[in-house]
Amino acid sequence: MLEEKTIEWVKEGEFGYCLTVDQTLIPFEYKKIKINSVEDMYSAIKTMIVRGAPAIGIAGAHGCSLAAMELKDDDNFIEKLFKKFDYINSSRPTAVNLSWAIKSQSDIVEKNKDKSPREIIDKLIENAIRLENEDIKINKKIGEFGASLVPKGAGILTHCNAGALATVGYGTALGVIRSAFKNDDTIKVFADETRPRGQGAKITTYELLRDNIPVTLITDGMCSYFMKKGMINFVVTGADRIASNGDSANKIGTSTIAIAANYYNIPFYIAAPKSTIDMSINSGDDIVIELRDENEVKIVNGKPICPDGVNIINPSFDVTDNRLIKGIITEYGVFKPDELKKIFS
Amino acid sequence: MLEEKTIEWVKEGEFGYCLTVDQTLIPFEYKKIKINSVEDMYSAIKTMIVRGAPAIGIAGAHGCSLAAMELKDDDNFIEKLFKKFDYINSSRPTAVNLSWAIKSQSDIVEKNKDKSPREIIDKLIENAIRLENEDIKINKKIGEFGASLVPKGAGILTHCNAGALATVGYGTALGVIRSAFKNDDTIKVFADETRPRGQGAKITTYELLRDNIPVTLITDGMCSYFMKKGMINFVVTGADRIASNGDSANKIGTSTIAIAANYYNIPFYIAAPKSTIDMSINSGDDIVIELRDENEVKIVNGKPICPDGVNIINPSFDVTDNRLIKGIITEYGVFKPDELKKIFS
Repeated sequence: MLEEKTIEWVKEGEFGYCLTVDQTLIPFEYKKIKINSVEDMYSAIKTMIVRGAPAIGIAGAHGCSLAAMELKDDDNFIEKLFKKFDYINSSRPTAVNLSWAIKSQSDIVEKNKDKSPREIIDKLIENAIRLENEDIKINKKIGEFGASLVPKGAGILTHCNAGALATVGYGTALGVIRSAFKNDDTIKVFADETRPRGQGAKITTYELLRDNIPVTLITDGMCSYFMKKGMINFVVTGADRIASNGDSANKIGTSTIAIAANYYNIPFYIAAPKSTIDMSINSGDDIVIELRDENEVKIVNGKPICPDGVNIINPSFDVTDNRLIKGIITEYGVFKPDELKKIFS
Repeated sequence: MLEEKTIEWVKEGEFGYCLTVDQTLIPFEYKKIKINSVEDMYSAIKTMIVRGAPAIGIAGAHGCSLAAMELKDDDNFIEKLFKKFDYINSSRPTAVNLSWAIKSQSDIVEKNKDKSPREIIDKLIENAIRLENEDIKINKKIGEFGASLVPKGAGILTHCNAGALATVGYGTALGVIRSAFKNDDTIKVFADETRPRGQGAKITTYELLRDNIPVTLITDGMCSYFMKKGMINFVVTGADRIASNGDSANKIGTSTIAIAANYYNIPFYIAAPKSTIDMSINSGDDIVIELRDENEVKIVNGKPICPDGVNIINPSFDVTDNRLIKGIITEYGVFKPDELKKIFS
């Protein structure tokens, strides 16, 4: 198992830097890179060197520390700092964990605004490391709660990657699978390729192979075939933003699978920390869906898969209707979509 | 438009040969190849140089002519001929059009078995050319019947390629789209990439671009996103084998889309000639689904998309339940799945 943190703050010299796995190289290379500027952090999030809602959140938190380090000798420290926080927050729009983490850092700044920049930097680093450490604990709790839902010998479908690499460690949806596999090594996993960027084919299979959990790679259209055959009978994915009514944004293709699961009466679960729940919005209609570059669809392994001149639209997420979701697995327990307001308000 | 035939018999010398577009090169090259042996025809079908249920049928018919040509000076002509027919028929299992065409050629042999091999060859070539010419006429009828179902300004989703290249010309599902576009140039088409082999990205977009019909390429998981937004409100695909109860096998991923269309109350149609309907089977459970090489999933543009050692299952088709199909568009009209028995028995 990936026991080390996939993203972390490394203390060195006066303050330190962020160290993260470059996820764009997985599965062909496992390489860590240092991030020691706001610009590099913005770019790492935008280009998906760091990806996965919880990991993006931690990256954002460390980005805030870097912002303060860059401004430490500046007049108007606080004002400029909040501008940099906004800039980091604009790197990707859909995952709420980013704004959640930046909000947490903003609160630290507010609370300590009379202190010196150096003291504020220390507080920001301390808070980000706290979030980092909490993430793994939260995921292990999600894993435990989720594992209890998995039937003996289940065939589990997951989409995209909500694993150790999408978080600081252990994973959310893959955390459920890891915990379920500890209880029952007869479960089998189906990983959706997850076009356009192929995080299922590249990252989920990589993580599960490393853990010796049996995994079969399928393409995104195949789920109905395997559900009908009874080979898939449980579905769990992560989420990037969950509205207060339980509508859940996750990687494009998730809602298609949820609809298929619903058709075959197969339970569909979302596994995500409380920080992914956005109680400020009423429904999925309020979630901004990021549209990404058409070359993500067009170019695979360096070459086009279609003729030049074809129009392409590349939404990075879709929203799964709450009524398709059997439960949302959090670190506080498993809740029906309509229970979120009661529990988290 | 592709006005020329994409597969045809060319008379030359004593008998002639089959000329077909090499579909594995589309969209990057439009090249025709001569096929003048049973072995080459078998291989062309198996490796998908010729693909698309109706085109495979015509290829099979011409393959039968080539078989007779190879055996013309052989003792036991008839017996050996039927063995070669069986061999051609074994090239791909799912599309019923192949065995339908070979059955048509077998009937020709039976009817003329007292004639000389050379006379039988002439009859086989004549019959195959007849099927070839009928295919385009059938597709234009399917196009007319289908076009009348398309709402004004519709956003039409299609999966894989059921176009001119999947047939002798005009296409089935794309025939519907071509005819609809003649009536209403405000329609828009969404083409699914259709992993693993990408016939939607490669061939459907190529055909529609050539015809100046607006087309947007999306990945296979995206349909729910565009259906929910109201941008897709009509779905039409081809089929490889339709059971007598209307269950329809088509390219893997089709049933996933049909389920999504059903969820959003969007009409889902199958466009296919009568030769695709297999009245000898009761339901989709009786349709043999071809499993193809895992490298179709694993290798894209010459390189892997996943780590080595991952298990892959690659079913080439799935079966869409009859209750998800609003109508089957044939050259005889549009029928509900439960009307097939009444009409075609």
